[in-house]
Amino acid sequence: MTTSPPLGIGIDFGGTSVKCGVVSGAEVIALADRLETDDYPDAGSLIDAMAATVESLRKAHSGIAAVGIGMPGFVDFDSGLVHNLSNVPGWAGIPLRDEFAKRCDLPCQVENDANAMAYAEWKLGAAKGCSHVVALTLGTGVGGGIISHGIFIRGAKSAAGELGQTSIHWEGRKGAYGNLGALEDYIGNNELAAEAQFAYARRRIEKTLAECQPAALAEAASAGDGIALAIWEDAARKLASGLVDCCYLLNPEIIVIGGGVSQAGNLLFAPLEEFLFSQLSGPFKDGLRIVPAHFGNEAGIIGAARLSLEEAGVV
Amino acid sequence: MTTSPPLGIGIDFGGTSVKCGVVSGAEVIALADRLETDDYPDAGSLIDAMAATVESLRKAHSGIAAVGIGMPGFVDFDSGLVHNLSNVPGWAGIPLRDEFAKRCDLPCQVENDANAMAYAEWKLGAAKGCSHVVALTLGTGVGGGIISHGIFIRGAKSAAGELGQTSIHWEGRKGAYGNLGALEDYIGNNELAAEAQFAYARRRIEKTLAECQPAALAEAASAGDGIALAIWEDAARKLASGLVDCCYLLNPEIIVIGGGVSQAGNLLFAPLEEFLFSQLSGPFKDGLRIVPAHFGNEAGIIGAARLSLEEAGVV
Repeated sequence: MTTSPPLGIGIDFGGTSVKCGVVSGAEVIALADRLETDDYPDAGSLIDAMAATVESLRKAHSGIAAVGIGMPGFVDFDSGLVHNLSNVPGWAGIPLRDEFAKRCDLPCQVENDANAMAYAEWKLGAAKGCSHVVALTLGTGVGGGIISHGIFIRGAKSAAGELGQTSIHWEGRKGAYGNLGALEDYIGNNELAAEAQFAYARRRIEKTLAECQPAALAEAASAGDGIALAIWEDAARKLASGLVDCCYLLNPEIIVIGGGVSQAGNLLFAPLEEFLFSQLSGPFKDGLRIVPAHFGNEAGIIGAARLSLEEAGVV
Repeated sequence: MTTSPPLGIGIDFGGTSVKCGVVSGAEVIALADRLETDDYPDAGSLIDAMAATVESLRKAHSGIAAVGIGMPGFVDFDSGLVHNLSNVPGWAGIPLRDEFAKRCDLPCQVENDANAMAYAEWKLGAAKGCSHVVALTLGTGVGGGIISHGIFIRGAKSAAGELGQTSIHWEGRKGAYGNLGALEDYIGNNELAAEAQFAYARRRIEKTLAECQPAALAEAASAGDGIALAIWEDAARKLASGLVDCCYLLNPEIIVIGGGVSQAGNLLFAPLEEFLFSQLSGPFKDGLRIVPAHFGNEAGIIGAARLSLEEAGVV
């Protein structure tokens, strides 16, 4: 006789929509209709809708033991408080876990979305079995999660792992929190597109920002476009600088890279490895692996669900 | 009846000399004559002399239970291997703990010197009782140690915590390990002196490098010298950039700063706090403290001894 594994619900709260899925092990076995954040006038009504979605998933699937929510912003994991969200207004200082508990009697955890992704890669994906991990996700924003000595590093206020906010230039661009030279402000989707548009313009080549998005830049570079190739090399140099810091501070054994920008594959990974390894001393590069993420878009749902199941003590 | 605490020997291996002391709790109760590294033709003969010093300290003090050695370079704490020392030739790939064990039957630990300092501050000094600590020491080099969730962070190859090698500029100065923009290459003693000499020269003021050392710069700044003040402010900006990375990655509750350069006091600490806090979002700055180190020159001896006693299970 086999027993089925406990099920969890993972919620991936994005900049424009909220996805809820039922997770079994490393798989999303059911996905509810997305909730569009614009359809809800305030945090409370969106939390109502999230809780209702969870309840309907529970009716369709027995054995759901916990729910985890990944949020795109600074989150206090311990208290379940959402400090603020970068791209969704009305979400400052929301005690999300407490609000959710009022509506739904499942054990609930609230975590930063990149941390949820990192958790999925650590427990079930590319870094499974590793004790010293730096995971990052490259998209509109740059986020990350850190595991050291087999512990998920959250820090004093449960907000650690914000790789995108680390600085690559002490006198650099001023970011969202007054910080200078934040990695995210150099290699986020929009920054790459703007850099590319500028580089093309200097050669008198007219491109829209849509034509300069990472996927288009990857295609152009693969076809031998020198400007697109240079953009990827430049992005790799900047990313390497951010990762140099992670390596000298944390001495990881593996770096996992996911998110849309990482789909450029070797256009990014090959120069990244070169620039990173050329800046590391022996014990920091010996045995170090840089690998693509195992999970794609579902990483956040899977990681949030897994985290909630572990915190509930059922896996 | 009181029992005396177990004693440890701490060895602080510096760029030019080696200091050995007997430690009781947070105090160095006896110090042996220094060994000058130049007096010894190779690592083996210096290890002989270190072991002989330890034996003579043991004869004079009963109850010594362990010996810890802090080394100025990359060290694998787990294996006791010294990868290399920045400023002492002949010390690449030395299995120091094993070599010491051949000469001396005390439990022995080998650690990076800045880690030993961080350990002393965490267990007995300015960060006592804290679980999330970044400690750094500012001198000729810049070193550090990290505690997160109550664990001393060593990483996959036991080499973590190298704050001085983290980058503050992705296209910056090329450092000892090929790394670009290393913090140490901007705010180390010699860098500060060179920056100051340059700034004075531009105003046609002739200064020797000796006149531009941190202690002299602190004195000049305290007397209102605008150039010296600007050097300290500039150093604070660069150091803040390195610490911004530590904060976003690790979310510490306390940052402890020691070493000779830190003796500039508020000339460094006041602008540092301003530049750092202005770059941190809520959960990263709420409750964060930046404090001077409790221990001075003896931090390395005390930390190495304490570490060895804890590893031996006697404290």
